[in-house]
Amino acid sequence: MRRIGIEEIKAIIAKSDKEGLLRCIEEAFVAYSDGSATVPPVGHLGFTDPPGDMHIKYGHIRNDPHYVIKVASGFYQNDAKGLPNNNGLMMVFNASTGLPEALLEDEGYLTDLRTALAGAVVARHMAPKQIKAIGILGTGVQARLQLSMLGWVTDCRQVYVYGRHSDKMSTYKSDMEAMGFQVTACANPGDVARHANLIVSATAAQSPLLMAAEVSPGTHITALGADAPGKQELDPYLLAKASAVVCDSLAQCIHHGEAHFAVAEGLMSESAITELGARILRPVTRGPQDITIADLTGIATQDIKIAGFVLQALG
Amino acid sequence: MRRIGIEEIKAIIAKSDKEGLLRCIEEAFVAYSDGSATVPPVGHLGFTDPPGDMHIKYGHIRNDPHYVIKVASGFYQNDAKGLPNNNGLMMVFNASTGLPEALLEDEGYLTDLRTALAGAVVARHMAPKQIKAIGILGTGVQARLQLSMLGWVTDCRQVYVYGRHSDKMSTYKSDMEAMGFQVTACANPGDVARHANLIVSATAAQSPLLMAAEVSPGTHITALGADAPGKQELDPYLLAKASAVVCDSLAQCIHHGEAHFAVAEGLMSESAITELGARILRPVTRGPQDITIADLTGIATQDIKIAGFVLQALG
Repeated sequence: MRRIGIEEIKAIIAKSDKEGLLRCIEEAFVAYSDGSATVPPVGHLGFTDPPGDMHIKYGHIRNDPHYVIKVASGFYQNDAKGLPNNNGLMMVFNASTGLPEALLEDEGYLTDLRTALAGAVVARHMAPKQIKAIGILGTGVQARLQLSMLGWVTDCRQVYVYGRHSDKMSTYKSDMEAMGFQVTACANPGDVARHANLIVSATAAQSPLLMAAEVSPGTHITALGADAPGKQELDPYLLAKASAVVCDSLAQCIHHGEAHFAVAEGLMSESAITELGARILRPVTRGPQDITIADLTGIATQDIKIAGFVLQALG
Repeated sequence: MRRIGIEEIKAIIAKSDKEGLLRCIEEAFVAYSDGSATVPPVGHLGFTDPPGDMHIKYGHIRNDPHYVIKVASGFYQNDAKGLPNNNGLMMVFNASTGLPEALLEDEGYLTDLRTALAGAVVARHMAPKQIKAIGILGTGVQARLQLSMLGWVTDCRQVYVYGRHSDKMSTYKSDMEAMGFQVTACANPGDVARHANLIVSATAAQSPLLMAAEVSPGTHITALGADAPGKQELDPYLLAKASAVVCDSLAQCIHHGEAHFAVAEGLMSESAITELGARILRPVTRGPQDITIADLTGIATQDIKIAGFVLQALG
């Protein structure tokens, strides 16, 4: 069993073709939605003392030479111990023999990466043609990666950011300005929405940050914070008033994504939601006044595809 | 992440205290049944071309420093490719931080071992006091390990074996005689049951091998072949007529163990079944005429405990 460490993985990604990375995640969503992937329910284990959780995403895409098992953990008191809160690894097995082939000790990096790539893929398929400014809610790892990869699919460099802590917003601003963006810190999410027509919400919020009344026609919003029950970033009325709500996985988003709240509260019907893979296969032209929403909870086919990408790059 | 290969694991087990190994598996069953273990449903992935399957057993025992994820695969055309059909590995994570600690590349050996230890644990708690002869159905890896470990808990060395292939029975006989047993090959399972009052069934049968009428009063039978839907070794009427039916996991055995058939066919009620962990905690004295049955499907706490045993032995 080949063992590939995080530095080697980062080096491979750094020298990879951006279009190849984006396409691999597009294929992940298509495989999920067109029936060619087998994706069992996510495995989960919860801990209380100290609090933490572990989940297992795994599956196989038809005709892929590998199946992949991804293990991810979040222990939120690690920080205080000088350890990363999030961790993870991926295991790659031969789909014809079951033999283990590779252990990717990515420490969660590939999960961060495939999540950020998903944001860029969504922007490519759903964002307004003219992006006047990018809005970012959150200032963490994912808020950084999302903006960085949005830079792959749009020329817009005007950014409005909101975070709960002004010091973290300052760091975010200077770090992202060093990457070529012009960043304005905002006092609240509504201010972000007033300026930006492509918004990415990447927070750990447990109640709506962005309200329906704050979002103008012609805006696209990608929300990716609701990756587990109890998390929520968007006003469910915002989903109800949107022209299109797209989920990475209908089943997962109805269970614990933004769509969960809107459907559970009877504000919209499940049948009004499209999966991202279906949207990629059958593109929809957005009207200038449309509000569109992408609800991303993270799916195993992204893990399968990004692991396969790394292995293929290694040769 | 520490990496421990199969040779190192085998060396550790070879020099381990037998009583320690048996106790660790006893504790596994108790933890499963007394509510101190969190054991999510088994994850599963099936393949058709070539046929194979993969399952994930995982969980955590309260106050254990680790949680464990075990991956096992079976691809039944590997043999023809010169590869082992079964494979597996275990991953051990720190339960306070989520950090990966060890990868046990045991290739399925620890699964075989903990399954065989379970047979010995069952014998210790359920077998007749006087074992006149041991009966073994099957001649494979598990049929060998089971007998070998029964040797740890009984002085009886008289063995009656039945296997479908006479050449494999001959090899089994000579191999086990080299280990100090006296082995008689039988023409059918009924012949085994006529001689033995402690029977272990370790086959891949998909229909009953051993019929109710063939089993005499005073016999204990451990069946461990029904580890997935569609497998069956015992006549369901045998379970119905037994004084006691004990399952490693009630939920799993009702789903796909021997108990599944007896309960689904209305021959016995679920409430008549005890879990092995409960039986260990509250021993039952068997009557001389009792027929008892243990239905083992394999549970994650066995994997957790055996992985912990190896790590502790490594120091």
